[in-house]
Amino acid sequence: MVQSQTLDRTFSALSDPTRRDILERLSTGPASISQLARPYRISLPGVMKHVRILEEANLVTTDKRGRTRECRLGPERMDDATRWIERYRSQWEHRLDRLEAIIERRKGGRT
Amino acid sequence: MVQSQTLDRTFSALSDPTRRDILERLSTGPASISQLARPYRISLPGVMKHVRILEEANLVTTDKRGRTRECRLGPERMDDATRWIERYRSQWEHRLDRLEAIIERRKGGRT
Repeated sequence: MVQSQTLDRTFSALSDPTRRDILERLSTGPASISQLARPYRISLPGVMKHVRILEEANLVTTDKRGRTRECRLGPERMDDATRWIERYRSQWEHRLDRLEAIIERRKGGRT
Repeated sequence: MVQSQTLDRTFSALSDPTRRDILERLSTGPASISQLARPYRISLPGVMKHVRILEEANLVTTDKRGRTRECRLGPERMDDATRWIERYRSQWEHRLDRLEAIIERRKGGRT
């Protein structure tokens, strides 16, 4: 169930717009909590809470440097999440193709 | 913010292993709530709750037929979710490439 828990944490971390923003911001380079907080109307502890959720999902790592905490992208590359969605999408497409074939066959029967 | 809310709902719906299972099950064909509940040790109302969350994310549609409720895959194909993850991953890779280039340059300077 390890992989399942990783997926739970990854998808849960991505389900919030502020957390997705933070990841996009960190993909341009490391930032402190207060730098991350600047564009938002939320408190530092609020941002810290989001960062902690990203950290638990291994999407972010943080490093205390004196009085600031530097954040950067973590080791989780979302390979499992991508794989899950892609597998699902291909089953979905396959199912649509089958439905289309059934409809085509029925059409053929009618003419 | 419509797209953002769609992403919130999609990722949130995917953050639970039972809901991911239900989607995989439905990708093989429609099923009633009690058919969906069979492999789990959770109650029918428990399954119904998961189905409702999937329905709100447009990942599932349901249709009341007499005393049963038939569930099938909904219109949401996770295109936005895939796009978001893929864009993020490409930025991540790009960042790794840049880091690698910096390390290579430093190595070069040392020799």
